[in-house]
Amino acid sequence: MAASLPLVDTCCSPLTEGALDDAAASTLAAKFKALADPARVRLVSIIAAADGGEACVCDLTEPLGLSQPTVSHHMKLLAAAGLVAREQRGRWAYYRVVQDELTSLAGVLRSGAAPSVNNG
Amino acid sequence: MAASLPLVDTCCSPLTEGALDDAAASTLAAKFKALADPARVRLVSIIAAADGGEACVCDLTEPLGLSQPTVSHHMKLLAAAGLVAREQRGRWAYYRVVQDELTSLAGVLRSGAAPSVNNG
Repeated sequence: MAASLPLVDTCCSPLTEGALDDAAASTLAAKFKALADPARVRLVSIIAAADGGEACVCDLTEPLGLSQPTVSHHMKLLAAAGLVAREQRGRWAYYRVVQDELTSLAGVLRSGAAPSVNNG
Repeated sequence: MAASLPLVDTCCSPLTEGALDDAAASTLAAKFKALADPARVRLVSIIAAADGGEACVCDLTEPLGLSQPTVSHHMKLLAAAGLVAREQRGRWAYYRVVQDELTSLAGVLRSGAAPSVNNG
């Protein structure tokens, strides 16, 4: 009944280029899930817009109006998905956006005709 | 305490070009949430890979091994997010991917230097 479909099993193949297998779909879904929350979307945008592309966790609570444990929880999820990198300096953690990961995710969403996966 | 950040309030501005306000972040997060599930990621990839870029809901149950009500539930969420378009023909619903929406979402993830928002 189902049409015969090409199977694509790499993580970063364009979403629209061939039917993804379960493992590839799960990898992608986990990254989209990290961005499936308004606070986390804002955190990524704030960090990316910060001076030097880097922000101290201590500067992220005020713009979001969230407690530091809540911000730290969101940052942990973003880091686990590979979308931000964390560096501890003394008392504070500093974060920067992993643009290669976002670019790779963007490549997945673009049509197969022009994949723009960035392998750094 | 917080650094002064440019506010960007349109829905499809690149995520990394300026701090997003709450409304823009919520709009984006809702679209990412639609893709935050392996079954929905697979459904999008299967529909995009189907002949003519279109698939009958009746052909989507077998490749996923899910019941038709479950597939219909997932398709409803994807359609609500604007990522797929639905057309009823007789007994069956047919779906196609809204590539402009995916391309627009991809543009959001790319660095501000090269926004690729498609206003179709």
